[in-house]
Amino acid sequence: MGIRVTVWNEFRHEKDTDHKASDVYPDGIHTVIASFLNAAGYDASTATLDEPEHGLTDEVIANTDVFVWWGHMAHHEVDDEIVAKVKERILAGAGLVALHSGHFSKIFKSLMGTTCNLKWREAGEKERIWVVNPGHPIVDGIGPFFELESEEMYGEHFDIPQPDELVFVSWFAGGEIFRSGCCFTRGAGKIFYFQPGHETNPTYYNETIQKVIVNGVKWAAPIDVPAIVFGNFNPIEPIEGYVNKEYGQDY
Amino acid sequence: MGIRVTVWNEFRHEKDTDHKASDVYPDGIHTVIASFLNAAGYDASTATLDEPEHGLTDEVIANTDVFVWWGHMAHHEVDDEIVAKVKERILAGAGLVALHSGHFSKIFKSLMGTTCNLKWREAGEKERIWVVNPGHPIVDGIGPFFELESEEMYGEHFDIPQPDELVFVSWFAGGEIFRSGCCFTRGAGKIFYFQPGHETNPTYYNETIQKVIVNGVKWAAPIDVPAIVFGNFNPIEPIEGYVNKEYGQDY
Amino acid sequence: MGIRVTVWNEFRHEKDTDHKASDVYPDGIHTVIASFLNAAGYDASTATLDEPEHGLTDEVIANTDVFVWWGHMAHHEVDDEIVAKVKERILAGAGLVALHSGHFSKIFKSLMGTTCNLKWREAGEKERIWVVNPGHPIVDGIGPFFELESEEMYGEHFDIPQPDELVFVSWFAGGEIFRSGCCFTRGAGKIFYFQPGHETNPTYYNETIQKVIVNGVKWAAPIDVPAIVFGNFNPIEPIEGYVNKEYGQDY
Amino acid sequence: MGIRVTVWNEFRHEKDTDHKASDVYPDGIHTVIASFLNAAGYDASTATLDEPEHGLTDEVIANTDVFVWWGHMAHHEVDDEIVAKVKERILAGAGLVALHSGHFSKIFKSLMGTTCNLKWREAGEKERIWVVNPGHPIVDGIGPFFELESEEMYGEHFDIPQPDELVFVSWFAGGEIFRSGCCFTRGAGKIFYFQPGHETNPTYYNETIQKVIVNGVKWAAPIDVPAIVFGNFNPIEPIEGYVNKEYGQDY
Repeated sequence: MGIRVTVWNEFRHEKDTDHKASDVYPDGIHTVIASFLNAAGYDASTATLDEPEHGLTDEVIANTDVFVWWGHMAHHEVDDEIVAKVKERILAGAGLVALHSGHFSKIFKSLMGTTCNLKWREAGEKERIWVVNPGHPIVDGIGPFFELESEEMYGEHFDIPQPDELVFVSWFAGGEIFRSGCCFTRGAGKIFYFQPGHETNPTYYNETIQKVIVNGVKWAAPIDVPAIVFGNFNPIEPIEGYVNKEYGQDY
Repeated sequence: MGIRVTVWNEFRHEKDTDHKASDVYPDGIHTVIASFLNAAGYDASTATLDEPEHGLTDEVIANTDVFVWWGHMAHHEVDDEIVAKVKERILAGAGLVALHSGHFSKIFKSLMGTTCNLKWREAGEKERIWVVNPGHPIVDGIGPFFELESEEMYGEHFDIPQPDELVFVSWFAGGEIFRSGCCFTRGAGKIFYFQPGHETNPTYYNETIQKVIVNGVKWAAPIDVPAIVFGNFNPIEPIEGYVNKEYGQDY
Repeated sequence: MGIRVTVWNEFRHEKDTDHKASDVYPDGIHTVIASFLNAAGYDASTATLDEPEHGLTDEVIANTDVFVWWGHMAHHEVDDEIVAKVKERILAGAGLVALHSGHFSKIFKSLMGTTCNLKWREAGEKERIWVVNPGHPIVDGIGPFFELESEEMYGEHFDIPQPDELVFVSWFAGGEIFRSGCCFTRGAGKIFYFQPGHETNPTYYNETIQKVIVNGVKWAAPIDVPAIVFGNFNPIEPIEGYVNKEYGQDY
Repeated sequence: MGIRVTVWNEFRHEKDTDHKASDVYPDGIHTVIASFLNAAGYDASTATLDEPEHGLTDEVIANTDVFVWWGHMAHHEVDDEIVAKVKERILAGAGLVALHSGHFSKIFKSLMGTTCNLKWREAGEKERIWVVNPGHPIVDGIGPFFELESEEMYGEHFDIPQPDELVFVSWFAGGEIFRSGCCFTRGAGKIFYFQPGHETNPTYYNETIQKVIVNGVKWAAPIDVPAIVFGNFNPIEPIEGYVNKEYGQDY
């Protein structure tokens, strides 16, 4: 069985027929992403905000290897309890690929511990994405740089912890730079933030973008995680006179 | 004026005259720490849980360069709103020196984004603290290793993000190791976690421990932080036809 | 075709029938390692110091995805020119798994830029290896810690750059700790240093050790690396009046 | 006494009266840099390639806290033995601030372990330098970004190990980005690479550039380094029957 991916999307912009996003992604961003992930051999499903439990039932969460997350205008509507369950699953080893405005999602902010704020501009300007880590699995098969003719600018300072691995840095025509591909580890979970993907741009139809996300999901997929025990721990080596107060036993 | 330090302590164990901590720190852990920080030339005050607003009024927070934090049994009693204000101040540039069981404090967990869980054992065993980053400001004047005859064991796995800089790793007689000195940057704030300091051990009277904390405060002290602007941002370089939708101006 | 591994071994201790290593590894350490790598589905060959060109001909180097390296007493006999060719191959994307006393090999030191010095002791003491990065591909299927009844102690300070990813930290019965599993990226190449493996201990017959090395080779295997161009570079965006002086062309 | 800085400069371009650098820096780049470092309260001297021992006698090396290094066309003329001595001093705790084309100096490459190659273009284009680490001592008092009207472009991929701390990322008008401010630790030494400073641009007269270099020197200055012992090490904890083979003593 392939990697089990749940593509979560807020799915609001695309349902508003007055919004340009409805032209670009008539069936929602999630549908497009799930489609190319399935074509890549993964087992991808979708979940959206307005489904019961946002489509993230306990069963869905437990059976997800990697979450892909797109949200924008309704981050605050995502239930804290569900976020807590997704976070628990990620810390236990699942992956998270946070896309574009997902930088402000509750799940991403909670894992980062910072505001995740940034600069932005909707000018549909050119973005050039440079590889700065040419041996990283996420750039497998990607050229040294690639371009998007029209994207929303995201600019520094991006208030995240220093990434464990910085993979991409973007150049924008208007004068900004952005750490656009960032890898983090939290608990046993791996997190990849990838900046492109404004809802009115056809970014997720771009084959290089698709390749990066396919690679990102593979990189973030769980391993067989060590069975860690936390809490009161008896000594492995002898310590003279030691009694475990919690368990009352001489050890 | 020296670095302004607020030494925050839960101050519960030491007030319980039946608790061994009251013998070791009759006036509280915070008093001992503030004392050696003042002797080092800093401007250190104290604040404790049971004071109004936990001693962390807006004025105290605004006038703190570095917070030193010790808590253990009552983390859950610390008010979320006050934690939020301390966090905001840290992200804006203040420092945090989190000590020992402060690993489970709301402020530390919130900045890490992980559970911060670990193994522990109260066996009063020997801890040997090894330097693994011999050029770091925090080991200035410290030997290549030093020992505590009796400390609480904290063992791996310690569920924190990989530290930006790992400074100390500890050996425990019972068979465990621990990343006992860890540096992080969050926003413009610098965070140093330092493991020793069980409430029934005279750890904070140890001169090497004091030197490490003095160094840690200095390392974590704020710089003159760049005045960062977040949000909608006009282009610096010309972009043909660009109109800032938010401000309605042709740009 | 599987990952192509070249297991390089100095192969001197084991040929000396007076040396205990000849009992433990009668056909050489490389033979044992290559054997379990082949059993894991890789395409592993061996090369040793006393072969022509140390077994590292241009063809072998060009057709190696991952080098596994064990050396000890004869690092200085390894030809600088061959080291340079191996290094070039690694920077271009090949992997390196440096084992035990390989910390002092020319290839490892050259990639680190530091002395790679450390403490050591041949007391055949107990080593306990703790996982500190439970989501890392190298600990896939490994428990939270494992033990070797008898290993050579390697102790801090280990003079390496801070690893990009710290995976294992070891506890030794005599009182030391060691960063025993360290990942680095250099150029497009990935490097895993793994400490166990003294020539007189049966370490490489240990199944957990084998699993770690199998995982390490997989982690270090090359991707399809971006075709990077260095040097004088014409602008992608127009710069008024720019003439490339090197190529004499108006651009 | 202030931090003792040795500003090393190749000093060839500026002595060639046909070269534009001789107009911009008639007394050499080193003179300008030493001047603003002395004005900042440091104890700065200079040394140049064509002096005996390149101005880097054993005494000079031993009495240098931080080396500032500018070189370009004659890296290969720097004596390997002198580079080795400077490297030894840095690993023992001294700092290195490598400027601009110093990326290709023997000392910097030797500490990095990679080729340190990059893209470049002499188009005198605009560079905008963005802060990506707003709490770092090196950006103390610097704005969130600053500009140079005319600099040599340096572009990614920059073949360095991932910096321990990434401080600046630059935007170039012609379409490239560059990790222009990078911090590394090697041994007990701290290294800051800072990209601006082409010999025909008045970059080192720029006050913000001067402030960054002043901060960089302060950050890289040595601490009182732990007295580390390497090699055969007797156990601190008792190991039954252990005899140190090297020293022949029962331990």
